[in-house]
Amino acid sequence: MGPHPAVAAIRLAVRRVLHDVLTEHSAQHSSPPGGAHPLVLVACSGGADSMALASALAFEARKLPLRAGGVTVDHGLQHGSTQRAREVADRMTALGLDPVDAVTVTVGRDGGPEAAARDARYAALDAAVERHGATAVLLGHTRDDQAETVLLGLARGSGIRSLSGMAAVSGTAGRYRRPFLELDRQTVRKACIAQELAVWDDPHNADPAYTRSRLRHEGLPALEKALGKGVVEALARTAQLSRDDADALDSWAADAETSVRDETGRLECAKLFGLPPAVRRRVLRRAVIASGAPAGSLFARHIEEVDRLITGWRGQGAINLPGRVEALRQGGRLVIRQG
Amino acid sequence: MGPHPAVAAIRLAVRRVLHDVLTEHSAQHSSPPGGAHPLVLVACSGGADSMALASALAFEARKLPLRAGGVTVDHGLQHGSTQRAREVADRMTALGLDPVDAVTVTVGRDGGPEAAARDARYAALDAAVERHGATAVLLGHTRDDQAETVLLGLARGSGIRSLSGMAAVSGTAGRYRRPFLELDRQTVRKACIAQELAVWDDPHNADPAYTRSRLRHEGLPALEKALGKGVVEALARTAQLSRDDADALDSWAADAETSVRDETGRLECAKLFGLPPAVRRRVLRRAVIASGAPAGSLFARHIEEVDRLITGWRGQGAINLPGRVEALRQGGRLVIRQG
Repeated sequence: MGPHPAVAAIRLAVRRVLHDVLTEHSAQHSSPPGGAHPLVLVACSGGADSMALASALAFEARKLPLRAGGVTVDHGLQHGSTQRAREVADRMTALGLDPVDAVTVTVGRDGGPEAAARDARYAALDAAVERHGATAVLLGHTRDDQAETVLLGLARGSGIRSLSGMAAVSGTAGRYRRPFLELDRQTVRKACIAQELAVWDDPHNADPAYTRSRLRHEGLPALEKALGKGVVEALARTAQLSRDDADALDSWAADAETSVRDETGRLECAKLFGLPPAVRRRVLRRAVIASGAPAGSLFARHIEEVDRLITGWRGQGAINLPGRVEALRQGGRLVIRQG
Repeated sequence: MGPHPAVAAIRLAVRRVLHDVLTEHSAQHSSPPGGAHPLVLVACSGGADSMALASALAFEARKLPLRAGGVTVDHGLQHGSTQRAREVADRMTALGLDPVDAVTVTVGRDGGPEAAARDARYAALDAAVERHGATAVLLGHTRDDQAETVLLGLARGSGIRSLSGMAAVSGTAGRYRRPFLELDRQTVRKACIAQELAVWDDPHNADPAYTRSRLRHEGLPALEKALGKGVVEALARTAQLSRDDADALDSWAADAETSVRDETGRLECAKLFGLPPAVRRRVLRRAVIASGAPAGSLFARHIEEVDRLITGWRGQGAINLPGRVEALRQGGRLVIRQG
């Protein structure tokens, strides 16, 4: 008798990613016979999604020329979190993962509690990769997480890049991989039950103080009730399509940016005017960031105002932008500079 | 004392659109002095949004070289609808609009009740334009309607074109105009109250059998609760950005389609492979539609399957597509033809 269908599904998803990792690794390293196998880590909170991922990694890695380890991050935000991180590490060891780290981090305040915790977590995972010379880190995000991420991006209203959610492959040299991005959360949870894995429910996931938690427990169910059960899948597909579209437009803008400069490198307003609005705004955004404006502080309305120097010219003065950058029109050229 | 701020806001929105209509009209017609002024119609259901629009059109048109009329469409779906259409027509006449039509239509079944009613309504409006030789038809869609339309598009998961909502200008020769697309519904409703306009609440708008109604009364409020009050504005901004992005990518695909054909006009797989995925899929979609597949039956999964003939070639057979169209790879060329 084969494994439970849900267990088969999570293993297949992990197997595919491990094959990609191995293929890429062998293309880049001509390791001598007998050399150490590449190491793949799982980032595991002890919750159902990442415990399922840890179990599938441990199972699949045994059959491949791979070493499999795990990292759990103690954010130090709750009473008893250190003890719990140790338990999660023990569970990973029991699954056969080695090495296993429990890492304590200090969470700052930048960007709100969720963003600060995420920044601290990825910094710890990056450090673990360096420490162990790991090739990849698997993350347990599911299709449901992806749908939530798309809605969070939608709420920013800052265009299709923010609708593109999480990438299946991301980070330095593509170290982060998300094998479950096309699996629904229910399948992953069933795989835990079928394998009798002990899992821990993060109380943050149900805490209505967190935007993502409100979205998960109220926003998305209401949307499903109004629009039908296919919403999560539709949002995940929107993420993929938006990512490809945003990539294509970014590459167009990079090409266009060189073609709209004069021989001294200044931006020519007449040439900018000839670009499609979507491309022109991306060129302007690139130019403003290159002049020193921090990308995170630059909003669509800033770029729209700069764009009006091109499309709605009526003698406006210089436009002030974040990072002490200003944009002004001068003799048919757009000047963007830091003051 | 000036008008109520909400009344000023709706009038300003209409005034801007009427100026555009006049500017475009005079660029296209060198009408002799004494010739008839161009006619602008309002499509009015008798609901708050379109009654506000009718009032603003009547007010602004008096000050411009324009005639202003109105059309109300009786869908014949509810008991007493004919009587009500006559009342709405009377209210428009009382506002000073002339001509005013009440038109009865027969609603079919294609695409579900909402789509069928919409198709019948636009056909009746198109007919009214022809009958009166009108220049434009104003529609009362607000920013809230736009947000709902974006969410409906999101639920289809078919990419950024379906996220781009309603255009401010659409239809044959740009005849349809939506002056309230950047105004929130609350402002428009306040303008009705301030002007003591009698309005009629369409029971369909509160009927949970209708997807849009469920979205309005349950989905969107839950999303606002989870994500904050700015969601409607963010969705409307997403619509605009997505529309510009989709337009730019469509124009790229149109250019690319000619560059990937060989001297006999066949699609070269190697050249298709070199395009960004977002552009390649649009080129494939165009080619499949040009071969006779109905656009409405063509889904992202169809195009993905055709795309795998290019990106994942392992000797697949012909792929069957809607409209008896098939796609196959033959000697490094992609053949798309109707059987």
